[in-house]
Amino acid sequence: MADLSTTLPLTRASVQAAHELIKPYIHQTPVLTNSTIDRFASTPRTEAELAGTEWAGRTPAKPVLRLWFKCENLQKIGAFKARGAFHAIERLKLEPGWIEGGGLEKGVATHSSGNHAQAVSLAASISKIPAHIVMPSTAAPPKIAATRSYGANITFSGPNAPDREATVAEVIAKTGARMVPPYNHPDIILGQGTAALELQSQLPPATTLTAIITPCSGGGLLSGTALACEGTGIHVFGAEPSLEGADDLRRSLLSGTRIDSVTTTTIADGLRTPVGPIPWSVIHGKGLVRAGYSVSEDEIRRAMRMVYERMKVVVEPSAVVGLAVALFNEDFRGLVEREGGEKGWDLGVVFSGGNVSLEKLGELIA
Amino acid sequence: MADLSTTLPLTRASVQAAHELIKPYIHQTPVLTNSTIDRFASTPRTEAELAGTEWAGRTPAKPVLRLWFKCENLQKIGAFKARGAFHAIERLKLEPGWIEGGGLEKGVATHSSGNHAQAVSLAASISKIPAHIVMPSTAAPPKIAATRSYGANITFSGPNAPDREATVAEVIAKTGARMVPPYNHPDIILGQGTAALELQSQLPPATTLTAIITPCSGGGLLSGTALACEGTGIHVFGAEPSLEGADDLRRSLLSGTRIDSVTTTTIADGLRTPVGPIPWSVIHGKGLVRAGYSVSEDEIRRAMRMVYERMKVVVEPSAVVGLAVALFNEDFRGLVEREGGEKGWDLGVVFSGGNVSLEKLGELIA
Repeated sequence: MADLSTTLPLTRASVQAAHELIKPYIHQTPVLTNSTIDRFASTPRTEAELAGTEWAGRTPAKPVLRLWFKCENLQKIGAFKARGAFHAIERLKLEPGWIEGGGLEKGVATHSSGNHAQAVSLAASISKIPAHIVMPSTAAPPKIAATRSYGANITFSGPNAPDREATVAEVIAKTGARMVPPYNHPDIILGQGTAALELQSQLPPATTLTAIITPCSGGGLLSGTALACEGTGIHVFGAEPSLEGADDLRRSLLSGTRIDSVTTTTIADGLRTPVGPIPWSVIHGKGLVRAGYSVSEDEIRRAMRMVYERMKVVVEPSAVVGLAVALFNEDFRGLVEREGGEKGWDLGVVFSGGNVSLEKLGELIA
Repeated sequence: MADLSTTLPLTRASVQAAHELIKPYIHQTPVLTNSTIDRFASTPRTEAELAGTEWAGRTPAKPVLRLWFKCENLQKIGAFKARGAFHAIERLKLEPGWIEGGGLEKGVATHSSGNHAQAVSLAASISKIPAHIVMPSTAAPPKIAATRSYGANITFSGPNAPDREATVAEVIAKTGARMVPPYNHPDIILGQGTAALELQSQLPPATTLTAIITPCSGGGLLSGTALACEGTGIHVFGAEPSLEGADDLRRSLLSGTRIDSVTTTTIADGLRTPVGPIPWSVIHGKGLVRAGYSVSEDEIRRAMRMVYERMKVVVEPSAVVGLAVALFNEDFRGLVEREGGEKGWDLGVVFSGGNVSLEKLGELIA
């Protein structure tokens, strides 16, 4: 990972520069709309539905929502993570002395059981540099196979963060590879922000987004999105599962203090990590994220089923938490009603990834 | 359906006119690319794979293919059929005397167990006219529910074509509704052709398509595509299942005589109908389709799995026959090798629809 002294400042202009750098390597993913889902989102929930939730007895909100789905599930490797990985490696190639010091031969390293592993492997392979990936030996076989298919050198570790970090440190000591962390680095944040930048340019001429909502885990995508929206007037929100305290962003924003540990078994397996310090400096420090909202496991499943049936695209559980907030979270829906009124909101919704096996998808939304 | 004396001539200019008419109602569906699938398509099959096929013992072809996927599975109602239905109804509204004769109150009628039923129902509902849909009582419950969700009046019939036709004739006699046939009409053909027209305009500036391949059943999509390519130099091919004689297009083109009866149980359930006479007049009469190629049931399943895993979009079995031809049909692949050489072909591949339940998809590609 490029040395912090050489990274670009965390600004919208830097997201634009990142986009220029990675454009040749990534897909400009499509932005889809769906009138059936808009109608559903713009229909008040029933009192019966709210019974048993924290909103029981409240008058259901009446938001008007037009949703613009940025389909990063159709990105290379099936997730937005390709953006950050390509940007990190392109920036590394620009770091004074890295190539001269044998960087292209030593390569890059990271640890990941999921999309980040594939993203770093793909980006490294395109630049013809070695990728050393530490994966927990418990990782799903299709994810191991996918990572291997990009030519990565895989080392297995124990399943816990300390095991993984120790193993990647050994790999780096042996190879001289440079670490590419999954979210806690400016290069990664700026790369992830390019999705929201593209989204802004892909709307019909008369349409202006009121807000964008993205999933939030380590916070790379959310903080990058916030930078991409800085100064545009577009509000930015984060979405999370609520299970077992997975809503650390929401709680951190409410208290003003970053929660740095989360243990959750949510089905949204990409969203089990707490927000990292550098993303937090954008989200909270720069005040660029307005709020976090969370959804239940059942709401995630319902949103997944709707996307499968109505939109005909494949989304992993983590990808739909933003849509689930728009459909089911009465606090968010009440905000849209109050501020949007009859005109309503044009809401950008980032689908973060589509890496879920058919078997797993069947289990999840049966 | 608009009287034949009032329809536009079967030309590329008429496809352009159709596009102007329906543009406000349809999605401009995205065009996706996938480097993994391109690599797979551009890798020769092994001799072991060809053993047991009609190409056993032949040297595997070495085509170079860049595929451009036109995603009509992401169209409204999940299939290209929306294009023809919107065009048919917009043309009907322009037919002299139809509105004055109470057409808006009498509405439209058709019989279909699948995508055409939903397409006509949606298009009629947008124009606020009644849709009378005859469905076989054996139709899948989700398809009945989807058709009903657009506000259609559904009448059930026996499962065979004569039963369905007799029932729709009764409905028309009773209501005065105008028939909207699924493929054998110029308005439908011109509407379906708009997908290929869009595809031509969605490529990067330096790219010119060598050919487009579409699934072929009644021939509306294929003949419309052929008209959209007339005079452009783009070759047009049809793709079909081979099971139990479902390859009627291929056989008709070889003999020069249209086969008008097919009985097949192919999993590509949208492709069980033989080419109709008006589509045939374009395909063969105008000489605008170069050839038909067919694929096995197993090849259809393999292509579906690849699309699910690599592209993250949902496709029904009928949708992938064009891709399966590009991946597996050695006659087609040999043609690309011979004519495309090292430069290869840029091939447009139309994904026709994505209406398949998750349960069914799981069964098909397990």
